[in-house]
Amino acid sequence: MDVLAKATQKRRAGEDIAFLCVGQPAAPAPKAALDATRAMLQDGVVSYTDAGGRLDLQQALSAHMECRYGVSVGPHRIFITTGSSAGFNLAFLTLFNPGDRVAIAAPGYPAYRNIMKALSLDVVEIATGAETRHALSPELLLAEHQKAHLAGVLVASPANPTGTMMAPEALQAIVAFCDDAGIRFISDEIYHGLAYSEETGIAEQTALAFSDDVIVINSFSKYYCMTGWRIGWMVLPQAMVRPVERLAQSLYISAPELSQVAAVEALTAVEELEAVKRGYAQNRALLLERLPAMGFASIMPVDGAFYAYADASPFTNDTMQLAHALLDKAGVAATPGLDFDPMNGQRMMRFSFAGDFPTMTKAMDRMETFLRGD
Amino acid sequence: MDVLAKATQKRRAGEDIAFLCVGQPAAPAPKAALDATRAMLQDGVVSYTDAGGRLDLQQALSAHMECRYGVSVGPHRIFITTGSSAGFNLAFLTLFNPGDRVAIAAPGYPAYRNIMKALSLDVVEIATGAETRHALSPELLLAEHQKAHLAGVLVASPANPTGTMMAPEALQAIVAFCDDAGIRFISDEIYHGLAYSEETGIAEQTALAFSDDVIVINSFSKYYCMTGWRIGWMVLPQAMVRPVERLAQSLYISAPELSQVAAVEALTAVEELEAVKRGYAQNRALLLERLPAMGFASIMPVDGAFYAYADASPFTNDTMQLAHALLDKAGVAATPGLDFDPMNGQRMMRFSFAGDFPTMTKAMDRMETFLRGD
Repeated sequence: MDVLAKATQKRRAGEDIAFLCVGQPAAPAPKAALDATRAMLQDGVVSYTDAGGRLDLQQALSAHMECRYGVSVGPHRIFITTGSSAGFNLAFLTLFNPGDRVAIAAPGYPAYRNIMKALSLDVVEIATGAETRHALSPELLLAEHQKAHLAGVLVASPANPTGTMMAPEALQAIVAFCDDAGIRFISDEIYHGLAYSEETGIAEQTALAFSDDVIVINSFSKYYCMTGWRIGWMVLPQAMVRPVERLAQSLYISAPELSQVAAVEALTAVEELEAVKRGYAQNRALLLERLPAMGFASIMPVDGAFYAYADASPFTNDTMQLAHALLDKAGVAATPGLDFDPMNGQRMMRFSFAGDFPTMTKAMDRMETFLRGD
Repeated sequence: MDVLAKATQKRRAGEDIAFLCVGQPAAPAPKAALDATRAMLQDGVVSYTDAGGRLDLQQALSAHMECRYGVSVGPHRIFITTGSSAGFNLAFLTLFNPGDRVAIAAPGYPAYRNIMKALSLDVVEIATGAETRHALSPELLLAEHQKAHLAGVLVASPANPTGTMMAPEALQAIVAFCDDAGIRFISDEIYHGLAYSEETGIAEQTALAFSDDVIVINSFSKYYCMTGWRIGWMVLPQAMVRPVERLAQSLYISAPELSQVAAVEALTAVEELEAVKRGYAQNRALLLERLPAMGFASIMPVDGAFYAYADASPFTNDTMQLAHALLDKAGVAATPGLDFDPMNGQRMMRFSFAGDFPTMTKAMDRMETFLRGD
């Protein structure tokens, strides 16, 4: 976060910084979403909604889940949240008690760890490697579960910062293992919609395809280009609906209503959003070509999302320092691996390619020049 | 909440229900706020902001605190939140550990209790009476503090559901007591702007006037008519800024950006919002005349906010039942006291007069007819 803060300062001071450090689409929200928002501003009354959200959005997401994955989830099991952030908090608070052991993969999204620690949970970070495509597996979980009971596990596919995905069979296996072992399974599906399956052969699947007891967390921030709207959703097992509702009523009251209204329409904007995704695919191809060419040792398989997680060990064993140097001397902001992996992140660097193609090209040119030592 | 859910269902089914059960202004957000929102939709990029919010909103609120109360608080001490709900959660998580004793007044806003319990805090509910104007006092706190250390206290003035206010001297005394005793003081000022001081003689004052160590929580939901926008702010002691920022970054990322942009302009809409407040004053006068006339035993002093908290004991000792009867037979939705006071709420009823005057008149007419047994 230090790099981000410094990069933002430099930009505000008028410096031309290429931002590859934030998982935030450069594209605006879909036109239909903006139009729906404008329409709602006509009378200007923007109100609390039911804690679980507006029924029209719950219904639209129920239809979306059916149409996209063929899973049947009633609108009442869909809980609208203030971004996926609220989904994590509500899931953790409802499922776990202070001291409970909950497993996540390293590397992984740092907010998982931070929220869990704030709630006094015992975070079990499990190092992953290429043999499991950088994801958790039944074997990795079993080893920890045998040490002491795991209350839950959180899995993301596509994942941040790695961009890797679990194949449907791998997801099915870990869901089955958790159901058998009595471990609650939380599936972070925030990067769904952003899989490069035609190139990788790995299909996207929801954990709901394999069990009704999983908790799915999703959001309009990434595929739908609506980060600052703070709007997401959870799919809950029937028995969790009322407990989450009671908690959310006090902790959030409801998600922002303008964003809920916009989200209903965002679901229909397939053409516009697929065009945005084609832009990411172009960025992805560029980074996959140029990062190795300029000397990065390897990049984790970019199966989905908009991140290239690259091994910078040919240059340094301290990517925090490299990140500051790239920012100060090349005007490129990227994220050092330690933010995602306290164990092995010091040689890794995450490049977000959610920006536009000219920015990516400029960043690659500048980095190449800098790393060549010109 | 059961009454609210049933009332909402009835309204959706086409019944004409007078809603006096929600603390939600009937008026729209100020025109300037709506215009600013529309302008931002032009390019449609709505982004994450810094965790503490957009600098322009922090600056505008810093100026607002100076202008309204004469207190000098730098923009960096103002932390923008996703409604006051987020402010409570962040304050509790940053200040307290599981098991800590935190005091609140009974009757009081139920979310205080619910959030604290979700965070495994030990909620100390202290019954209040007319002798302290239904507020906590140094004496009441001392009695509890002597039993076992209080880590914190949360005070609201104007209060929900009572509408009562603490005089500036009473607020000063309790802040001083807490500072001396090492008890963290949280001041919920969400109903500021809605004091009927000309009638009551009780001036509105911020706890910041008496100490820099207090935490102030406020919001655009009530005075500014922006409930569904989910936007509020905290004023933090300098030493808390960084801890809250770190936590908020993971738990919320940031408050909704459209709402932040709208809020800057809402601060300027004094004329429009004072007109809304004059409407509340008219509603207040109506309820203060008609509720006693139809037989309610007493109403707590409505110093501020938009609630009349009335003693229904001439009719019943079970206001939960009365609330359902009023809804089913008179089409009036009001909130039973048990929601606010598990100890003594069963004979009390809260009427919100945040709606419009015709709704209030209709509700009073219907209730009078129903209670007369016609």
